[in-house]
Amino acid sequence: MKLYTYANSSAAYRVRIALNLKGLKPEQVFVSLIKNGGEQHKPEYRAINPQEQVPTLDVNGHLIGQSLAIIEYLDETYPTPQLLPTYPLAKARVRQLALAVACDIHPVNNLSVRQFLKSEMKHSDAEINVWYEHFIHRGFKPIEALLANSNETGKYCHGDEVTLADLCLVPQVYNARRYKISLDAYPTIVRIDAALRALKAFADAAPEKQPDAA
Amino acid sequence: MKLYTYANSSAAYRVRIALNLKGLKPEQVFVSLIKNGGEQHKPEYRAINPQEQVPTLDVNGHLIGQSLAIIEYLDETYPTPQLLPTYPLAKARVRQLALAVACDIHPVNNLSVRQFLKSEMKHSDAEINVWYEHFIHRGFKPIEALLANSNETGKYCHGDEVTLADLCLVPQVYNARRYKISLDAYPTIVRIDAALRALKAFADAAPEKQPDAA
Repeated sequence: MKLYTYANSSAAYRVRIALNLKGLKPEQVFVSLIKNGGEQHKPEYRAINPQEQVPTLDVNGHLIGQSLAIIEYLDETYPTPQLLPTYPLAKARVRQLALAVACDIHPVNNLSVRQFLKSEMKHSDAEINVWYEHFIHRGFKPIEALLANSNETGKYCHGDEVTLADLCLVPQVYNARRYKISLDAYPTIVRIDAALRALKAFADAAPEKQPDAA
Repeated sequence: MKLYTYANSSAAYRVRIALNLKGLKPEQVFVSLIKNGGEQHKPEYRAINPQEQVPTLDVNGHLIGQSLAIIEYLDETYPTPQLLPTYPLAKARVRQLALAVACDIHPVNNLSVRQFLKSEMKHSDAEINVWYEHFIHRGFKPIEALLANSNETGKYCHGDEVTLADLCLVPQVYNARRYKISLDAYPTIVRIDAALRALKAFADAAPEKQPDAA
């Protein structure tokens, strides 16, 4: 297995946590989203991932893009520890929480969207920060409600075992902190994030711990 | 089972296709995203889905939000016909294609983002159309490549059986056509979309066929 990755990509961060939890250490290929106008846009990388995004997992020449597809693949093929609960309704809750981050926060605030806001929509950095903050709050407010109002929430997002939802939450909280966005309104998110970051698999996956950290 | 839905929601459209394929007919509750300032924002609905989005599936009081979480739940509990292939690498390809729509096109062009571009970022309808078109092309170009360059693509996105990827593709093509965006560069997407729309489960799920169609 080979992972195409970038330290500051929060989608790659999710996959790094999954790999650490499962004790997998694939070869890493670093794709800088910043250097040289973005190495993800080079034709060689576009052939690996036409979406020009990281991460991509290469499994004996089979190329998997999209972090959640990669994590579900890893969970099916390396089932210990399991990152999705057994029962369908519990799985649905975990996937709902994961997708609330992966669909409704991350893509709207992603690098390529911010670049388009700047270059094509002619927004200043200050205006883009307003955008970023708006979509963090729009996303975290309902996630806080889903977590705080459910007795299925435990030490982590779903009970006391790490799940896919946790793998999405921590990198998104990391991004919010990077943008100095107040998390005061989200005590449950903050509590769960702290409990997760205390785990070695999460700590070792942090952007600043990666060989390609800026 | 009870489905909270809206005719023009493309996330609800995905779930309607899944329900039709599996021969399920839950009670439908219509939540207009347009009327009365958006019924999804009412406190009664926010209690059902804190993300203030449709669809939501109510399974004996268990509320599932996020269309992909709902569809995976339905596929696990009503497995005929199966919407994901059996083998992990094939599943990963189907999920990658589904997420390329569900993460990277749909949320960036969604109603609430367009509303924010207008009200807060002060863009004209013409500028918002440029935005919309940009993110359709940014999304469809790599999906066309993934489909056209793989011998795993068949009559549909993955072989000759309908999968989760198809359920995401058709509503997104529908949206592109609604915005009169040229699909000339995407012959594989257009071919697969036409083959899928010929199926009764897809045809019956179209927005204009719903009881709450405008």
